[in-house]
Amino acid sequence: MVKIAVLGHGVVGSGVMEVLKKNQKSIERKTGQTIEAKYVLVRHDYDVDYKEKFVQDFDVILQDPEVSIVVEVMGGVHPAYDYVKASLLSGKNVVTSNKELVAVKGNELLKIAREHNRNFLFEASVGGGIPIIHPLHACLAANQISEIAGILNGTTNFILTKMIKEQMSFEDALALAQRLGYAEKDPTADVEGFDACRKICILASLAFGRHVYPQQVEVEGITRITPEDVAYAEDCDSVIKLIGWVKRNFEENTIVIRVCPALLSTDSQLASVDDVFNGILVRGDITGDVMFYGKGAGKLPTASAVVADVIEEVKNPENIATMYWEDAPDHYVVDAKTAVLSYYVRAKVLDTKRATEIAEKMFGEITVLSRKGQPEDEIAFLTPETVERTLDDTLAKFQSIADAKLLGLIRRLDY
Amino acid sequence: MVKIAVLGHGVVGSGVMEVLKKNQKSIERKTGQTIEAKYVLVRHDYDVDYKEKFVQDFDVILQDPEVSIVVEVMGGVHPAYDYVKASLLSGKNVVTSNKELVAVKGNELLKIAREHNRNFLFEASVGGGIPIIHPLHACLAANQISEIAGILNGTTNFILTKMIKEQMSFEDALALAQRLGYAEKDPTADVEGFDACRKICILASLAFGRHVYPQQVEVEGITRITPEDVAYAEDCDSVIKLIGWVKRNFEENTIVIRVCPALLSTDSQLASVDDVFNGILVRGDITGDVMFYGKGAGKLPTASAVVADVIEEVKNPENIATMYWEDAPDHYVVDAKTAVLSYYVRAKVLDTKRATEIAEKMFGEITVLSRKGQPEDEIAFLTPETVERTLDDTLAKFQSIADAKLLGLIRRLDY
Repeated sequence: MVKIAVLGHGVVGSGVMEVLKKNQKSIERKTGQTIEAKYVLVRHDYDVDYKEKFVQDFDVILQDPEVSIVVEVMGGVHPAYDYVKASLLSGKNVVTSNKELVAVKGNELLKIAREHNRNFLFEASVGGGIPIIHPLHACLAANQISEIAGILNGTTNFILTKMIKEQMSFEDALALAQRLGYAEKDPTADVEGFDACRKICILASLAFGRHVYPQQVEVEGITRITPEDVAYAEDCDSVIKLIGWVKRNFEENTIVIRVCPALLSTDSQLASVDDVFNGILVRGDITGDVMFYGKGAGKLPTASAVVADVIEEVKNPENIATMYWEDAPDHYVVDAKTAVLSYYVRAKVLDTKRATEIAEKMFGEITVLSRKGQPEDEIAFLTPETVERTLDDTLAKFQSIADAKLLGLIRRLDY
Repeated sequence: MVKIAVLGHGVVGSGVMEVLKKNQKSIERKTGQTIEAKYVLVRHDYDVDYKEKFVQDFDVILQDPEVSIVVEVMGGVHPAYDYVKASLLSGKNVVTSNKELVAVKGNELLKIAREHNRNFLFEASVGGGIPIIHPLHACLAANQISEIAGILNGTTNFILTKMIKEQMSFEDALALAQRLGYAEKDPTADVEGFDACRKICILASLAFGRHVYPQQVEVEGITRITPEDVAYAEDCDSVIKLIGWVKRNFEENTIVIRVCPALLSTDSQLASVDDVFNGILVRGDITGDVMFYGKGAGKLPTASAVVADVIEEVKNPENIATMYWEDAPDHYVVDAKTAVLSYYVRAKVLDTKRATEIAEKMFGEITVLSRKGQPEDEIAFLTPETVERTLDDTLAKFQSIADAKLLGLIRRLDY
């Protein structure tokens, strides 16, 4: 019998209780042990059929030597961080679904876990029910990972899918997502890309062994994407997705990391990841591109990943020493503008023909795009691949010389 | 220092040697150990820069207590089976990429491994470089898996992709695959579905805990698929893929398992798995659909999976007791014709209008399909979903009553 405590009883916490109950027998068969949630930490009591497990004082859990695994599903850095740290220090294993905690404190908590021969596992923090953390760490261990690119946020992917497939505006698609419960009342963390940012930080930290903090990442959300951009993207067989991506420079031991909307070719495996689904593409030197796809959020998918980690800790209570990353050296994250890529540009101009000619001269071989209902004073094109900083300079000059007013600017990525 | 022996030096064996050398440092960092291939078992000597490792007598490896891990990449059941069994019996851990061996002898070898507290790992046997065996076993452990469906053979997927995207005939696409080295001179194992069959057997055995033998599976290859079928599929927004699939009946503790070409909606994640890539969709009760995508074959992708298993065994030399399945009870695999599905039917008829009316009467609500260049005496349609055995009966009657000569018959699957 293994006794665990669940910290938090929101969406994920109640999901964990449900999964442990629903699949109790098959989990017992897989672990050879019965797993029992002895406590659930809540802020206040209410009626569920296991409310005798509710406690409001974390110390009850911390002081109980019977509890060997603490499941933290409260979210936020405080007090989650304090509880997780105290649990590890007192010799308990920890599982968390808390991406913010891992993104901000992962290096420190992994170090404490290692020093106390305990595990700090967080499969649910990225990709919900999609197995990604463990495969990245173990199954791809023969590879040196060079790049990761992912659709890491289901809310924004739902909104963009509605904009692409049903020509909705951003505002209408967001309102629909809110009505369906896919987006929160305050959707900032999703639509501004902060949620995706935490997840790409965790993936980058794990894959490359050096901690990356969310504030080190350039982040751009999807609030400025319009149906016009979607239509032009279609003209070059592309879709617009919110992508968290990171590229490693092996020679210099640096990375470029960014979250931004991006044009992806419809041939890309990521392009067909629609609605609330997530997809994560990992590029390894040996195995090439591998992609993981599934439900990136939601009560049960996330609980599935949490319980898988609990099972892992039941089977391996001692520290998995290789699941670890360290503090990064200075200048490890370099300016994202050093990346080489192509821009999609949409602009209002005085003279379309003249502006197109100027664009051709300044950017080189551009691909002119068109759309149904395109106004006479609008142009859109793709630039050739260039270092992004150079593209910025050229774009500034282009606007001034061609009398162009920028209406849309989206990166094009090659995944 | 961990010493291993590699049995076989074909495509995969030489790939394993290459990966161990190329990523030696990063593997050392991940395991805290140096991994050295002490022996490579070959049939005859030839010139490579590590030919001092070549041995032709397996007993040299078996008798050497320094060798703690045996990597079997010879293929075929004999003598691979004898070598693997002897290795496990003498206390060595084993890694294999040999799908035939696992599909035919998995239950026996896993039992020996367990009894001798050793591991028998086979990540590379399905999906090449795609992490699937371990995620299915560990990361989805909180789930009860209900279905698995996969594009498990890169050669046939390449051929079908060429037929779909470039309107090639089967024969031309096969010839191209052979020229490019994707298909063997004798392509039987691929195009007749035998390779995919071994792989779905392994996945079914692992996911449901009961051994399924290849000869228990109904297998149909892609040799009868024509460009006409591809064109009709397009008319109902579908593509034709070779799918290995298995469905579990929880109540009766039985499974339905089959390998066959199938129409899949273009909305399906599997539909966009093209060329030599593989995709495996796993349906769990908690996490819903999860898909794994990547290169399903080839020297380095397969070697990547083999070396990942070696790393796993270096980290966990003792038996992972839960990676295990047992012999199946009688009648565990039930007649695949009990599945409920829809048929795509193409037939030559005397009178199109009359035949369509008869089809409507006999099958129920059919979806009539059309294609460019459709001859006047040809009809094609989709039947409603029905138990397959009933569909067979109706189809036989339809042919006789409507004077129809069957030209094409493909299952439609809902993944």
